[in-house]
Amino acid sequence: MGTDIRVHQVYAGRVLHGPGARTLVPDEIERLGSQRVLVVASPSSARTAQELAVALGERHAATFGHPAQHTPVEVTAEALDLAGQVRADALVAIGGGSAIGLSKALAIRTGMPQVAVPTTYAGSEATPVLGETADGVKTTRRDPALAPGTVVYDPELTLSMPRGLTLTSALNALAHAVEALWDTEASAATRAYAVESADGVLSALPVVLDHPADVVARGRLQEAAWLAGACLAQARMGLHHQLAHVLGGTYGLPHAELHALLLAHVMRFNLVAAPDAAARLARVAYGDPVLAVSALAARHDGPTTLGALGVPRTALREVAERVASDPYPNPRPVTVDAVEKLLLAAW
Amino acid sequence: MGTDIRVHQVYAGRVLHGPGARTLVPDEIERLGSQRVLVVASPSSARTAQELAVALGERHAATFGHPAQHTPVEVTAEALDLAGQVRADALVAIGGGSAIGLSKALAIRTGMPQVAVPTTYAGSEATPVLGETADGVKTTRRDPALAPGTVVYDPELTLSMPRGLTLTSALNALAHAVEALWDTEASAATRAYAVESADGVLSALPVVLDHPADVVARGRLQEAAWLAGACLAQARMGLHHQLAHVLGGTYGLPHAELHALLLAHVMRFNLVAAPDAAARLARVAYGDPVLAVSALAARHDGPTTLGALGVPRTALREVAERVASDPYPNPRPVTVDAVEKLLLAAW
Repeated sequence: MGTDIRVHQVYAGRVLHGPGARTLVPDEIERLGSQRVLVVASPSSARTAQELAVALGERHAATFGHPAQHTPVEVTAEALDLAGQVRADALVAIGGGSAIGLSKALAIRTGMPQVAVPTTYAGSEATPVLGETADGVKTTRRDPALAPGTVVYDPELTLSMPRGLTLTSALNALAHAVEALWDTEASAATRAYAVESADGVLSALPVVLDHPADVVARGRLQEAAWLAGACLAQARMGLHHQLAHVLGGTYGLPHAELHALLLAHVMRFNLVAAPDAAARLARVAYGDPVLAVSALAARHDGPTTLGALGVPRTALREVAERVASDPYPNPRPVTVDAVEKLLLAAW
Repeated sequence: MGTDIRVHQVYAGRVLHGPGARTLVPDEIERLGSQRVLVVASPSSARTAQELAVALGERHAATFGHPAQHTPVEVTAEALDLAGQVRADALVAIGGGSAIGLSKALAIRTGMPQVAVPTTYAGSEATPVLGETADGVKTTRRDPALAPGTVVYDPELTLSMPRGLTLTSALNALAHAVEALWDTEASAATRAYAVESADGVLSALPVVLDHPADVVARGRLQEAAWLAGACLAQARMGLHHQLAHVLGGTYGLPHAELHALLLAHVMRFNLVAAPDAAARLARVAYGDPVLAVSALAARHDGPTTLGALGVPRTALREVAERVASDPYPNPRPVTVDAVEKLLLAAW
């Protein structure tokens, strides 16, 4: 295939968004023709899961309340048993990556349709990707059948999200949009999502940090996270995600915080080599996008440097070497010295 | 359903875009598992159709070379006969609205999969809508099964598009994006497409008018038209389309020229009541979007006023009355006086 020809593949799906959208989940279940719903909910979403069970009435078959990070196969097996016992014919997942990951793992094993009700900005509900853990080893698979066919974004479910998680999770979403913008193979449609997503995070996140219960700004941030999830599904991630992957994997660092503190540094490095992305981001930032992202990251009450996260100064060179030895597609050549300098600035 | 809850429904589809993308049509036919392709091509695309027939080899069953405007059912019947005679199992449509409309009409009657290769900016390939004419009466239907599952955008096929058609067809596309931007029920994803589409038209059209064979700018314009077609499929059209519909239907005016000359006037009227749309358009226009669109429309060598198109001055009041009596959803209230004033400015 010629390098200038791009393929944009869209799978069928339905997205509902807006305050109160969760109350339409029973209607969506009816659309699917399902009779016995297994609700998969993270503990922090227990109340929402309980309300949904009441709203579903006889169509509620059971609730599985303890999905786990990285989708361990033992937890999946336990939930699969429950699904079999209650003869479930549809899944509703409420929560973040763990609940939605478990729902995907169950769907791919049973063919049950999924309705995802995300409560964070991680974006898993928008991707056909699942990472599962067996015997401590994580394997990732990509399959259109993994993506929930219906996603329900209700900003009211995000009003109680802690301020720190709100900030780091939103910057994590922004990182997906930014990397899609400088992916030279991304389609025009993906670029469109990336611009609107960056616009949404940069304009709504400052409002949400000042007024965490502002449902309009929360809604806009959630829309931005939706489009960022679509970017993650459709574009190739570059240096930013590779750095987060290597650092996170080696030091077990918290995912969202790591993304939040790295992003401005990677943008400063890459945007000089990605003028289209730089121009688009400057427009939505109404100024220098690197400064805008730095200023947002600095508002975190938790760690904002690699040093504060616990990465030793002496490790930076080795991380740079690993990244440069097999770089992801990236607008600017990835050399050991350049990456070390970037990491040092983030340290 | 609550007025703040929006539904964004996406159907499965594949879009290929980039210079030379038409050479991948045989691969797409192979993906579909089809053996006997009926090519539907407008006369102006006869050469491309011939090249495709050669590339398809034994998989080329026949070519139907005279689709007609407004998809008359007699022409559809004739093409359906041909499809039956050659036992066609897939459709490839090359051309503008007429070729793609006929392909949709054949697909809905037979279930054959469609590959659309658009050569204008009209956007029919991106919509699940078909207007058919029987006994002089036009009926419109909307059905997901009408939308081509595969669309191939090759900007090389647009290099020979006449300058006038390029201008008016691109402004017609822009009108779809602008109306999606001020549709208060449009989803975040539709808004994303609208912004990127407006950005593409406003930045690429001036370049294409100066250098009609600039394949990069042509590609960008075609991408903008793709996203505008998606806006047409996903959003509700407002005052602009209603005016074009009433004026076009009453006086048989050329569709694209009418859109091109009306757009700036409707934007001037509506944008004061649609601040979000105005802010987004101002960013991509790097200034006043009404002036940017006016300046582009003024570059048309053909008629640029309703008067020049042949609409009598005395008819404006009646058109305004018809529009105001049953207005489409629109950001600003549609009164007879206001619409008459708008039409007078365009006259």
